[in-house]
Amino acid sequence: MPEIGVIIGSDSDLPRISECFNILEKFGVNFEIVISSAHRTPDKTKEWVRSAKERGISVIIAAAGGAAHLPGVVAAYTVLPVIGVPIETNIAGGLDSILSIIQMPSGIPVAAMPSGKAGGGNAALFALSILALNNEEYSLKLAGYRENMADNIDAKNKDLNAKGYMKYINDLKGKE
Amino acid sequence: MPEIGVIIGSDSDLPRISECFNILEKFGVNFEIVISSAHRTPDKTKEWVRSAKERGISVIIAAAGGAAHLPGVVAAYTVLPVIGVPIETNIAGGLDSILSIIQMPSGIPVAAMPSGKAGGGNAALFALSILALNNEEYSLKLAGYRENMADNIDAKNKDLNAKGYMKYINDLKGKE
Amino acid sequence: MPEIGVIIGSDSDLPRISECFNILEKFGVNFEIVISSAHRTPDKTKEWVRSAKERGISVIIAAAGGAAHLPGVVAAYTVLPVIGVPIETNIAGGLDSILSIIQMPSGIPVAAMPSGKAGGGNAALFALSILALNNEEYSLKLAGYRENMADNIDAKNKDLNAKGYMKYINDLKGKE
Amino acid sequence: MPEIGVIIGSDSDLPRISECFNILEKFGVNFEIVISSAHRTPDKTKEWVRSAKERGISVIIAAAGGAAHLPGVVAAYTVLPVIGVPIETNIAGGLDSILSIIQMPSGIPVAAMPSGKAGGGNAALFALSILALNNEEYSLKLAGYRENMADNIDAKNKDLNAKGYMKYINDLKGKE
Amino acid sequence: MPEIGVIIGSDSDLPRISECFNILEKFGVNFEIVISSAHRTPDKTKEWVRSAKERGISVIIAAAGGAAHLPGVVAAYTVLPVIGVPIETNIAGGLDSILSIIQMPSGIPVAAMPSGKAGGGNAALFALSILALNNEEYSLKLAGYRENMADNIDAKNKDLNAKGYMKYINDLKGKE
Amino acid sequence: MPEIGVIIGSDSDLPRISECFNILEKFGVNFEIVISSAHRTPDKTKEWVRSAKERGISVIIAAAGGAAHLPGVVAAYTVLPVIGVPIETNIAGGLDSILSIIQMPSGIPVAAMPSGKAGGGNAALFALSILALNNEEYSLKLAGYRENMADNIDAKNKDLNAKGYMKYINDLKGKE
Amino acid sequence: MPEIGVIIGSDSDLPRISECFNILEKFGVNFEIVISSAHRTPDKTKEWVRSAKERGISVIIAAAGGAAHLPGVVAAYTVLPVIGVPIETNIAGGLDSILSIIQMPSGIPVAAMPSGKAGGGNAALFALSILALNNEEYSLKLAGYRENMADNIDAKNKDLNAKGYMKYINDLKGKE
Amino acid sequence: MPEIGVIIGSDSDLPRISECFNILEKFGVNFEIVISSAHRTPDKTKEWVRSAKERGISVIIAAAGGAAHLPGVVAAYTVLPVIGVPIETNIAGGLDSILSIIQMPSGIPVAAMPSGKAGGGNAALFALSILALNNEEYSLKLAGYRENMADNIDAKNKDLNAKGYMKYINDLKGKE
Repeated sequence: MPEIGVIIGSDSDLPRISECFNILEKFGVNFEIVISSAHRTPDKTKEWVRSAKERGISVIIAAAGGAAHLPGVVAAYTVLPVIGVPIETNIAGGLDSILSIIQMPSGIPVAAMPSGKAGGGNAALFALSILALNNEEYSLKLAGYRENMADNIDAKNKDLNAKGYMKYINDLKGKE
Repeated sequence: MPEIGVIIGSDSDLPRISECFNILEKFGVNFEIVISSAHRTPDKTKEWVRSAKERGISVIIAAAGGAAHLPGVVAAYTVLPVIGVPIETNIAGGLDSILSIIQMPSGIPVAAMPSGKAGGGNAALFALSILALNNEEYSLKLAGYRENMADNIDAKNKDLNAKGYMKYINDLKGKE
Repeated sequence: MPEIGVIIGSDSDLPRISECFNILEKFGVNFEIVISSAHRTPDKTKEWVRSAKERGISVIIAAAGGAAHLPGVVAAYTVLPVIGVPIETNIAGGLDSILSIIQMPSGIPVAAMPSGKAGGGNAALFALSILALNNEEYSLKLAGYRENMADNIDAKNKDLNAKGYMKYINDLKGKE
Repeated sequence: MPEIGVIIGSDSDLPRISECFNILEKFGVNFEIVISSAHRTPDKTKEWVRSAKERGISVIIAAAGGAAHLPGVVAAYTVLPVIGVPIETNIAGGLDSILSIIQMPSGIPVAAMPSGKAGGGNAALFALSILALNNEEYSLKLAGYRENMADNIDAKNKDLNAKGYMKYINDLKGKE
Repeated sequence: MPEIGVIIGSDSDLPRISECFNILEKFGVNFEIVISSAHRTPDKTKEWVRSAKERGISVIIAAAGGAAHLPGVVAAYTVLPVIGVPIETNIAGGLDSILSIIQMPSGIPVAAMPSGKAGGGNAALFALSILALNNEEYSLKLAGYRENMADNIDAKNKDLNAKGYMKYINDLKGKE
Repeated sequence: MPEIGVIIGSDSDLPRISECFNILEKFGVNFEIVISSAHRTPDKTKEWVRSAKERGISVIIAAAGGAAHLPGVVAAYTVLPVIGVPIETNIAGGLDSILSIIQMPSGIPVAAMPSGKAGGGNAALFALSILALNNEEYSLKLAGYRENMADNIDAKNKDLNAKGYMKYINDLKGKE
Repeated sequence: MPEIGVIIGSDSDLPRISECFNILEKFGVNFEIVISSAHRTPDKTKEWVRSAKERGISVIIAAAGGAAHLPGVVAAYTVLPVIGVPIETNIAGGLDSILSIIQMPSGIPVAAMPSGKAGGGNAALFALSILALNNEEYSLKLAGYRENMADNIDAKNKDLNAKGYMKYINDLKGKE
Repeated sequence: MPEIGVIIGSDSDLPRISECFNILEKFGVNFEIVISSAHRTPDKTKEWVRSAKERGISVIIAAAGGAAHLPGVVAAYTVLPVIGVPIETNIAGGLDSILSIIQMPSGIPVAAMPSGKAGGGNAALFALSILALNNEEYSLKLAGYRENMADNIDAKNKDLNAKGYMKYINDLKGKE
């Protein structure tokens, strides 16, 4: 049974939030993904949201760009925590998506994540931080994930000190 | 039977679009007003939109501010023309409302009107321009409305020429 | 006789709104396209707009970028419904075009569409939603268009479920 | 023992998020409030966050304006869910606060709420939606809260229908 | 015979650019003011612009807010220098007006002035800097105007030094 | 003797405003170009501006990007008309350059042109519209330039009508 | 002999940065204030900056709004550290001032401070942090200033705990 | 012993500020670089900052993008001068980074540098302008650096005059 449900309005957004799925996999969480638009398939969206809880879902992640109504529309149909991920656009890089997701009216909360590359992964981690409140394993894994990030930075510092900044920068450019 | 349906997400937006009602009254159009939120009463909103056509409604005007999902949510449930009016907010005076209403995804159009004072009235006039395509009376009234605006400007020019700009400006300030 | 008139200020905008023409063709609507600028050929623009109704045109679509005065200038010369399409620019991806088209003054409405890829197609669909008020065929086609979009999403979900998200994302990237 | 911890960088922000406290009280949740700045009292902030879990806190709400680093700084010290509330400012009404809170880097999630009046209340409701995953009472209260909002809108519609829009608007203006 | 023509779209903009008239008066320039909208009275606007040169006008000042098409529309009908003054609005204080006036397309220039209080006066001074190219008297007056501004600042420095900043600030506050 | 002086803060801006030079050449105007920065060579800038009039210069064009102080600094040293061209940047495509050039304080006017491709050419045309007030040849050439633009659009319409929009768009894409 | 020089373009900005003077006084630093504009008194500005070092000045604070060229123009004439304070304006609360001050070109640095109330005081504190590098007394006073801020927050927390949030908020409102 | 400490939140920012290191090398300043995040390694960041002074560091340069809390978090732990460099992002080219760094609260100053290419180098030069207050060698080198920039511009002007603008622009394009 899925613990987390991910809904996206267009399949073209799938690659933009792929880090979300990578992290959920890594933590060993069951999740489901559905493509359903707030505007093009409103009834399907409603139905999916309304039945989410009974399918075992505790947290919903909704990604959308532009007018980006999907997270808000999802939140209208459930009191489960809804996390919104703004997809980048051409309007200042996604300012439209950000404002459409964050500026929800009083009474219907949506948790807005960063636009851009950090969005999908942070949505997964935030969902896990919720599940971790009642799941010691996830809680330990989250702590481990953070330690890992710190270790990673330590390793980079060692590399930087060993190589000097000029070689380090050149190597970085080479990797691009 | 109403020809135009006006939907607003919060009664506090009513006074912000009152010019809409003034113009509809002036043109002698039947209209109905409903308060129904995209988020707080999604089912009521859906039901109202889905039944709009059979109640005689040809054009829908939807006003909303902030995340401003209402016009898009309305458009998801009907192929009638939907006109969106962005309500002013504190975010750059309503940039959030404007972007949330105008940046609709491919396939589900919403006609975005100005934010601020011009929004409500222009929504009414645009709705009338649609109805006028099959209603000679409205068409004539629209032409008359424009002539009236022009006459009004003529009168102001005469007043300005007669008074001189200094007195004219002082009188304007006095009226505020 | 054309039912819809499309006016653009520069021929370089033609490819940006080509989805507009695709949809109008698909619906079997007669339309005409004219290149005429608000600033470079103001008299030609005026003349084209003033004679639009007698040429059979019911709805005008005007696309422009930057200062983007064309839709407003068109609306000044007619009480037919005018739909404005903001062309993308370098200023925050088209914020200048959006604001110049949406913030029309009281009394002269323009229906603003999304900037970017969704703009042209949504303008066509919105124009069709107006014509459909008195044309059952268009009305049915609009409903069919929506069903088609929904079916499309269903098919994608089936594909996603069958393949799994990793293969789906890889296939998407391959198609780019 | 508090279930929710609220941290603000400046006591002047207290009245801006008072709806947060009203809702938490109404739901009968234990919560604690601390004034502690990311910049002026970084050690106190760290200590408060690091000890939050053992004090019984499951969810942290952090409000800040301008550079608005507090929610991110809090999230750096805990894997508990952190909710950020952007306080309004003079920069486009709080665009600085919004961007500083929402654009967190990969790996350290913060759940961004709306700026302005909706922020405090939605933070409380979102925190409750998290706690409700393991608290049937909160879950029922959240459902009740939503029903209440819907009933409220119903009542307003009745009032509007009874009075007509002109009187309704006048009465609204009188209440201001 | 007027040397400068000032056109505004709405009489409510008159007080916003009154410094324009004060400066023109002070320099002893003949000017005319007309209220004529790009949208509400397009024909009158065209006619006024087209006949401007033969009425003796060398420079045109056009003020407008929001979509702010007036300066561009004026420039479409003349090769005289056109100066555009953006009127402040609620959208970020006039960002819509600024972008609509400054982002003119290739081939039709408009000289954009500041929005806000500086706009009207700077438009007058810029117009005078043009006329001064062939009018020694204006040229001398412009030099005198600048000296005057410098003297004014000198006097304020003396006052500040004499009083000290605390008393100076208090006196300033008293004058408000 | 040059009639127009063009000043740029960095030689990397030269290609961005090359249309300026093309137009000045085409009109047969004498002009000079200097690279001089408001910040890196302030004394040289001052000297060049202060001596401009006696070198025969009537109008100054100053291009700059980012903080873009150059046009304002130039205007501080002369009462000749100063035209500012904002160079595109990464900040929303040049919003920093636009605001730094347009928002000049009371008393020191700068005529702001569009950012982007239209900027350089429009600066040249605006400068010519000033010179044309006392130069019948330039005045005729400006009128001719406009006619040419209109003819160009006529030719494109003929081409579009002959080819149909699909072929026209394909041909456009081929030319890119 | 003054250690710090403060330059403002307009005396109306004096009250906006008064916290700057309060802090400098409190720390017992000698400072001088001059009103001198980048545009209205460019020569005076240059002279004041060029002679600053020999008058004993080590750090310059320059405040300006709108086009806000003053800090950059000052920096063009000295290699002393220059601190820029953006004054609030109507354009998104001062976005024009911020961008004009922060986006300096390569080679001429200006240290940009916050717009709004924090600007003046932070400029003073930053200047002091520079002087403190060679002045143990200032260094201790800066440490003391920070402790004081922390103590202040402690006192507020005690007050908040004693009173409860409702009374605290009411008392805050009373003080406004 | 290092005089300047450079801290970055992510090694991917290293190449973006490499001009910083080039300039510090050129001036012969000792500096250290550390990768440490405000969010991923908050304790390491704190420790590095708290011990900076005793390691000989006088000035700290902190670069960050997006939420960009690092410079502010650094400033919370020291009264040494802290210089913040906003890294470019997709949000309007780095408006999020700029606002998060510049809008620091009262009492904790951060000196904000330009985003983009100028940021790293200007941070180095500003740091040097601070050190130069007590280091005549740096002071002379700064003066020399400026002279060099001016000479460079002189050489370009000579080249431009010799070649003419057309060849100069072509050569520039060739170098890209």
